[in-house]
Amino acid sequence: MSISLTNENTSASLLERRSFVFTALKAAGVYALLTVPGVSKGHNESTARKEYTVQDIIDLILKEIPGAPFKETVDTIKSGSADQKVTGIVTTMFATIEVIKQAAQLNANFIIAHEPTFYNHTDDINWVPGNEVVKKKQELLSKNNIAIWRFHDYWHAHRPDGITYGVLKKANWLEYNSTAEPVFKIPVVTLKEIIHHLKSSLSIDHLRVIGDLSQSCERIALLPGAWGGQRQIALTEKEQPNVLIVGEVHEWETAEYIRDARLLGSKTSLIILGHSVSEEPGMEYLVEWLQAKVPQIKITHIASKSPFTLV
Amino acid sequence: MSISLTNENTSASLLERRSFVFTALKAAGVYALLTVPGVSKGHNESTARKEYTVQDIIDLILKEIPGAPFKETVDTIKSGSADQKVTGIVTTMFATIEVIKQAAQLNANFIIAHEPTFYNHTDDINWVPGNEVVKKKQELLSKNNIAIWRFHDYWHAHRPDGITYGVLKKANWLEYNSTAEPVFKIPVVTLKEIIHHLKSSLSIDHLRVIGDLSQSCERIALLPGAWGGQRQIALTEKEQPNVLIVGEVHEWETAEYIRDARLLGSKTSLIILGHSVSEEPGMEYLVEWLQAKVPQIKITHIASKSPFTLV
Repeated sequence: MSISLTNENTSASLLERRSFVFTALKAAGVYALLTVPGVSKGHNESTARKEYTVQDIIDLILKEIPGAPFKETVDTIKSGSADQKVTGIVTTMFATIEVIKQAAQLNANFIIAHEPTFYNHTDDINWVPGNEVVKKKQELLSKNNIAIWRFHDYWHAHRPDGITYGVLKKANWLEYNSTAEPVFKIPVVTLKEIIHHLKSSLSIDHLRVIGDLSQSCERIALLPGAWGGQRQIALTEKEQPNVLIVGEVHEWETAEYIRDARLLGSKTSLIILGHSVSEEPGMEYLVEWLQAKVPQIKITHIASKSPFTLV
Repeated sequence: MSISLTNENTSASLLERRSFVFTALKAAGVYALLTVPGVSKGHNESTARKEYTVQDIIDLILKEIPGAPFKETVDTIKSGSADQKVTGIVTTMFATIEVIKQAAQLNANFIIAHEPTFYNHTDDINWVPGNEVVKKKQELLSKNNIAIWRFHDYWHAHRPDGITYGVLKKANWLEYNSTAEPVFKIPVVTLKEIIHHLKSSLSIDHLRVIGDLSQSCERIALLPGAWGGQRQIALTEKEQPNVLIVGEVHEWETAEYIRDARLLGSKTSLIILGHSVSEEPGMEYLVEWLQAKVPQIKITHIASKSPFTLV
């Protein structure tokens, strides 16, 4: 069972509706039926399984990731425990306070988030000693008995890269790049048309650009998220795309590089989508990808959306 | 002699006018007079000096910085040589291709820039091996015989912090914070009013905000530039300002921290000015600060401006 909530204005009402449906089903005992062994008789072992722990879900995912498990990874459990029974799964970019509250309303006690929970890459809770926001977030998670696992390194290591694949799918660009390579070609359009297409298909209000809006583009470099200046610049130097599309930059690195490159004759433009919205479609796509593996567990995508207002 | 070019639309014509005035003075031999020892007779040693090398200027500056010279610093010469004679000085945030060309037009062969020249913090030219943009920029600098020195760590180490002081001066907030502390109070206004004031006084087209525009603010934390999430968050935790004003953030650090903090009851809003425009007033103020020390050298501020268009 999967309802993917998008970044649109309808998500709140969809959520309420979903919550209502779920509550109604639960009241009628329908949900319970799904977990009674007899009902799923005839299914194979994995689909007939009665209950899953957080670790079971993680193991199912890691089976599909080349080279997993990794010796070093930030993809660890940030809250809750590996052996807790999963009542429902929420996928998102950031397990914000709002996403946690919505997960609790959905009776989903396992959040799979792409990015950190505690505001730094390794989720070190003592990164800023005595951080009261971290403490309050931990209390909220504990009160609602919610587990969080980060699915970052592994999802990018999946082939095709799960995040890029989700973005291409949402932007309707899979026909040009079905294996989710970082560089690919689309039919020639202007930079302005690409921007409008991305804003519309990825539900982005505003984005930042360096480039000539009327310039023709067909060669795209797509690096959602924050890959850092070194990778963003190295890819641009090597591939000379017409446009580099990223989630986030260090302004003194990639932005200044692109500004200077263009003043020196380069035709590469830069589109900065915003970190959260640039990778969210990859966590939305995760619902479809994971649901096939655990049909008995309800998986819901909740978009964490952009945190910013533009003034 | 100092003309400070601001981030306004008039800067191009001001530049042309300035260039014309300078050329006219030079043609008339007026500029040369300024460097004839006899004319400055009676001045003290430093003002009577005929010529300055790049190193002379750096030494004059470092005299004013507590603890200088530092053992470790990114404030090194990025182009040209320490012993080249200075024909004129340009101050800026980023020594972009455009700033370099304008400096050459002004016959200024020494650029003092706050931020990196070659797109990474240590200005390692092999950070991205074989970077053609770096090579072309080096060629342009070499052709025009322009020296660049970074003035970052030392300007922030000056008391008061030269960048923060310049921003406060430009925002007309020095009366509330003459020593350029990171946290200070202003008369109560709404967040919306602060935003409009900053946009107008610092010549910023658009900025990103997390917060309630109608909320009252008086306690300000001002950290222009990119101080990183750890410092931005630690300061916010400790000082609980009504608004944290920064140049640039890592979205997964400070932006998500502020978003969650507010959902947990915090009243701290976040304003992201943009890196270049957030610190530019500090490099504009440098003209006034440095000109008093070397009255014979023409010092001009050229704003590198925001690289972004918002769509």
